Amino acid sequence: MPLDMADYTIGLDLGGTNLRAAAVDRAGRMLDKISGATNFAEGREAVLSDIVAAISHLREKHGAPALAGIGVGVPGFIRMKEGIISGSNNLPYLEHVPIRDEISRRLGAFVILENDANAAALGEKWIGAGRDVDDLVLLTLGTGIGGGIISNGRVVRGAVGMAGEFGHMTVVPTGNPCGCGNQGCLEKHASATAVTAMARLMQLGEDLSSRQVFDLARQNDLAGEKARTIWRVVGEALGIAIATLINAFNFPLYLLSGGMLPAWEFFEPHMLRTARERSFTFRATGSETRIAQATLGNEAGLYGAAYLPWIEK
Amino acid sequence: MPLDMADYTIGLDLGGTNLRAAAVDRAGRMLDKISGATNFAEGREAVLSDIVAAISHLREKHGAPALAGIGVGVPGFIRMKEGIISGSNNLPYLEHVPIRDEISRRLGAFVILENDANAAALGEKWIGAGRDVDDLVLLTLGTGIGGGIISNGRVVRGAVGMAGEFGHMTVVPTGNPCGCGNQGCLEKHASATAVTAMARLMQLGEDLSSRQVFDLARQNDLAGEKARTIWRVVGEALGIAIATLINAFNFPLYLLSGGMLPAWEFFEPHMLRTARERSFTFRATGSETRIAQATLGNEAGLYGAAYLPWIEK
Repeated sequence: MPLDMADYTIGLDLGGTNLRAAAVDRAGRMLDKISGATNFAEGREAVLSDIVAAISHLREKHGAPALAGIGVGVPGFIRMKEGIISGSNNLPYLEHVPIRDEISRRLGAFVILENDANAAALGEKWIGAGRDVDDLVLLTLGTGIGGGIISNGRVVRGAVGMAGEFGHMTVVPTGNPCGCGNQGCLEKHASATAVTAMARLMQLGEDLSSRQVFDLARQNDLAGEKARTIWRVVGEALGIAIATLINAFNFPLYLLSGGMLPAWEFFEPHMLRTARERSFTFRATGSETRIAQATLGNEAGLYGAAYLPWIEK
Repeated sequence: MPLDMADYTIGLDLGGTNLRAAAVDRAGRMLDKISGATNFAEGREAVLSDIVAAISHLREKHGAPALAGIGVGVPGFIRMKEGIISGSNNLPYLEHVPIRDEISRRLGAFVILENDANAAALGEKWIGAGRDVDDLVLLTLGTGIGGGIISNGRVVRGAVGMAGEFGHMTVVPTGNPCGCGNQGCLEKHASATAVTAMARLMQLGEDLSSRQVFDLARQNDLAGEKARTIWRVVGEALGIAIATLINAFNFPLYLLSGGMLPAWEFFEPHMLRTARERSFTFRATGSETRIAQATLGNEAGLYGAAYLPWIEK
């Protein structure tokens, strides 16, 4: 059916351990959502079946004729033209097979793949914290740091969909070695993993979560001071990276999302100060450049995946 | 006249001390070029008259009916919607006046403004080293370092046309203080100015040009060794920055231009090694990610300015 008669899409977010899918209407209202574990251990056919079953379920409920298309967010490198995943730590079974065309064939519907962090950035642009701008950068702060770039309302993908890998920007050239081969990567100084590592080094405790280090930071004692120092380091590392991004992009909006956001009050002042000190574009543009919290949380990727058929079909 | 009947455009490059203009046909052939000094000291009206006179001269020669439009590259911040320069070290007289509309009114023609480094990036994309790709980053290595970003064949401008200010990316957080307020900016470690400063610190000589430090690097003596060390530092700083850009953009092409290119043989190996060490995306994408020399030299900005009417009108 013609796109202008369609009235909803299905977005799917394929994570390392689970799969979520949502039917979303043209105005960005989530009509329905399902989620479940994925059987990666059982191999490609099991995962493909899970994907197709989730989408079929939503399509049966909301009607095939009104479905404009399907967006699938996946963690990993994507070759957009071919519709294949070409590198992923989480989805080895799905690499180097024509997964987009296979899902499309089984469902008889338009399918588009997207890197999951890019999809999250697009979701924030569509109906989240970025809905008033056409250009934004999203940094996702989790066990690692990822991100996405939206320029003129569209995802900047790069050659294999890996644009937005801000976690491996160098912020301290002589800093901690990173699994990526670099040293001093942003995510070695500002991810949840880095917070846990710093808490251990500062003898605050073994394997503390970033949530626990946030709770400690509210204490009015030595542990609290140490924890606040950790958030200061996180903020300064983020500030260096965001200053570089502001200088590189001159975009109006830089969003942060992920599990570290609760500690915003502790790292934000240091991030802001450092970014101001290090970016004359930030200072020159004043309130026209904002660093803010993303608002869609875990749903950002689902919304972004669901938005793709409207703008890419 | 309709755009499809037009057959050439005029590109203008307004520098700090001179003005160049060229008539370029649709296929990117330069039909004609003029250049002259600009009378900045004489104020706004003198500069505007120079601009209008240069364009009029070319238009009279090549015919008004066939002119598709005019692109003007200027150094500074640009507010694209309003067509005004909002920040420039070189063009204070032209700030905060509706310069685009004023040129357009006097000539009765379509005019578009563009930041000069962005125009250079677009020129390289159109008919230079980037003509086979749709996405590229250009770094201009001169007394300072600037640059431009082309995504999907279009300039990424940012809110005030300042996207691509790669010279102020932080490469050494504790490095040399920079006039921009930051410390350890790329251009404090990899510009011609930085080369001159390092040559002085290493007692190679006062006020050596990067060309002279290049010549020294070819000597088989202690001075040669010192000079080669300077190019190594330059290469490593560029490598850190380009690794970050590759991780951020995942584009296929990163171009370098400017007065330091003659020393390519001395800094390129260190740049390449550092970028490889620091960017897993670079390693993972192999020959699909290239770092190369721009090919249009000083003409890149003229070509890019001339290309603008074709894609932006």
